[in-house]
Amino acid sequence: MPSTEEQMEVFRRGTVHLIEEQQLAERIDAARAQGRPLRVKFGMDPSSPDLHVGHSVPLRKLRAIQRLGHRIVLIVGDGTAMVGDPSGRNKLRPQLSRKQVEQNLATYTEQAALVLDMNRTEVHRNSEWFDAMRFEDVLQLAARMTVARMIERDTFQERHRAGQPIGIHEFLYPLMQGWDSVQIECDLELGGSDQLFNLLVGRQLQEQVGQPPQICLTLPLINGLDGRKMSKSYQNAIGLTEPASEMFGKTMSIEDGAMRDWFVALTDLSPEEIEGLLAGHPREAKARLSSEIAASYHGREAAAAASRAFDRQFRDHQIPENVEERSLPGEWPEAGVPLFVLLREVGLCRTGKEAQRLVEGGGVRLDGEVQRDPSRLVPPPGRDLLVQLGKRRFARLRSVVE
Amino acid sequence: MPSTEEQMEVFRRGTVHLIEEQQLAERIDAARAQGRPLRVKFGMDPSSPDLHVGHSVPLRKLRAIQRLGHRIVLIVGDGTAMVGDPSGRNKLRPQLSRKQVEQNLATYTEQAALVLDMNRTEVHRNSEWFDAMRFEDVLQLAARMTVARMIERDTFQERHRAGQPIGIHEFLYPLMQGWDSVQIECDLELGGSDQLFNLLVGRQLQEQVGQPPQICLTLPLINGLDGRKMSKSYQNAIGLTEPASEMFGKTMSIEDGAMRDWFVALTDLSPEEIEGLLAGHPREAKARLSSEIAASYHGREAAAAASRAFDRQFRDHQIPENVEERSLPGEWPEAGVPLFVLLREVGLCRTGKEAQRLVEGGGVRLDGEVQRDPSRLVPPPGRDLLVQLGKRRFARLRSVVE
Repeated sequence: MPSTEEQMEVFRRGTVHLIEEQQLAERIDAARAQGRPLRVKFGMDPSSPDLHVGHSVPLRKLRAIQRLGHRIVLIVGDGTAMVGDPSGRNKLRPQLSRKQVEQNLATYTEQAALVLDMNRTEVHRNSEWFDAMRFEDVLQLAARMTVARMIERDTFQERHRAGQPIGIHEFLYPLMQGWDSVQIECDLELGGSDQLFNLLVGRQLQEQVGQPPQICLTLPLINGLDGRKMSKSYQNAIGLTEPASEMFGKTMSIEDGAMRDWFVALTDLSPEEIEGLLAGHPREAKARLSSEIAASYHGREAAAAASRAFDRQFRDHQIPENVEERSLPGEWPEAGVPLFVLLREVGLCRTGKEAQRLVEGGGVRLDGEVQRDPSRLVPPPGRDLLVQLGKRRFARLRSVVE
Repeated sequence: MPSTEEQMEVFRRGTVHLIEEQQLAERIDAARAQGRPLRVKFGMDPSSPDLHVGHSVPLRKLRAIQRLGHRIVLIVGDGTAMVGDPSGRNKLRPQLSRKQVEQNLATYTEQAALVLDMNRTEVHRNSEWFDAMRFEDVLQLAARMTVARMIERDTFQERHRAGQPIGIHEFLYPLMQGWDSVQIECDLELGGSDQLFNLLVGRQLQEQVGQPPQICLTLPLINGLDGRKMSKSYQNAIGLTEPASEMFGKTMSIEDGAMRDWFVALTDLSPEEIEGLLAGHPREAKARLSSEIAASYHGREAAAAASRAFDRQFRDHQIPENVEERSLPGEWPEAGVPLFVLLREVGLCRTGKEAQRLVEGGGVRLDGEVQRDPSRLVPPPGRDLLVQLGKRRFARLRSVVE
């Protein structure tokens, strides 16, 4: 096992919370002295098995920890998944059948294996312990936490203040997640930064039963291509099984300001390399980021090919054969023309509404750059403009300026 | 079965809440038409098996309802009793063993039989249904109620505002009590006025599962002899198994203002009879009340004997043989002497503290009246005073006034 300081650097990188560092260092010291790996827990959500690079943030961290010689323990919340949200209020908690849970777990495992060594990963369904609990055991568990402490949780507090209903069962879920930590004698639990409260519940329950309290480590939630939370349902995600060209092209469309977070969370580049790249030309930095991400899943060669194809298609304007030709509108105010108006005027969309939807869905590129804002004012170009609609439709807008 | 209106009169008498009357009338109509009795639920607390006349308030109502031909269903919360309050904060919820629960149930049943016909009473332990519930069933149950609704409950609200901890398990207890109603298909649940919230939870759960919602009927909590809540631990209670003379004498010591509540809740006298008695001399009214209560448990004859003995002992000052004689203090301010000072000065107590404790415990009578306030100023009597300490010690304080 590497030295404690080397290990601490791996644990620390890109974390939002690490509670708390000194304890972690001591725990690593002890692990090295006793030659026993730390037990590092991560909870898998059995309702969303399709993984994107947002999910890869914790998985990459787990891999790094695994490479240090520690034990990754994946917990599948199957019991709760089969209950779902009985009140029907929370769409993020659909009710799943046992079969669905197992199917999702298989899908998840297959995709997680793109990052993590699943052969060296322990997997537990928490029904292993919750199925054996009776009503009185649930009461005992519930008694371990107060209502006031639970309402402190930011999401509950917001909903409570806004008068939105919170089901009493929702107070039991964090306790269940915490009880998982007791059951597997967890040393460190890892989660998204929105999970801190739940992670701390585990820490508290372990203390109550006399176990050393787990270290809580959280990682940032990576925003999607459009700056909102990355989610399959927003169509702003990069799936772990997408081809290299998609990974490359999609990454090229993120905002410049998001690059640092992505570099830290999604690549193995050193802090110095990252700062160097960010100090240079943004397009070069983004191309490197895109390459690194594509290479993680498809290798260096495929990433390089994706990069070349992207350049050919967009930067060098070597656009495909079947490109439509349109004329730019004759009159073009200095302030610019709203993008959705432009698309309608040149006849690429029938209505402004249609143009708006298309742009909002990420289906429009201007000179290779994905557009997100339909109202964005396009200034008079003074040259040809290349428009891409969806994946395959290209149009060159001919400048009429003499 | 008596007419609906006659029955309504029985149900209505002395209630604090009746939610709601019109539904009850309809439910009785239906019961009469179908010839099926209503199922009337009452929860027994397995942690306090020693019954006093405070407990007899609901039991007497149940007997009256039983006499109308309805079915009394007694629920023993054995599951929760064996859990107790795992947080240890609530002393009213000690953890009981299965054996203790069964012993307490036997004691309770024996005493309840002094009021209720136990042979025609159905008894259920709620472990019958809760033992079969698994974690996911508990989650389903918990999802039936919101946190906001639970915090509305006055006792929770007060504690929450005062920053006193509320365990999450405490949110499950009202749901369990409500679920009992669903399990026994309850038509009407009866409880103390402090139970209204829990009774309404049952009503809500029944509606959710498609059962007709139970009628909720609450009765007043009778204060003890000293005006505080009646409780064995305050030594201000009249136990159901006490002798007639004790019942009579203790009832004679209540405040005049408490008589109406006691008449309504603890006797079968008609409203007209009660008003007539209250309009007369308070002492006569109280003697009648005391007689009625003693007669309920010991018969008319024993009650009459108790009444005569009381009169002999206190009103007619025909005190027992072995009475000590003491001199009243020579100096006696017009404003009076505090009772505890008097007791110390005449040498009946060694210290003022001892006198105070004795009075507060209800162990001191002055001319037959139980004293509760050690600081009460006793005016110059101008005649002999008869003091009783505890049950057997009597002293006559001789007036030195010429």
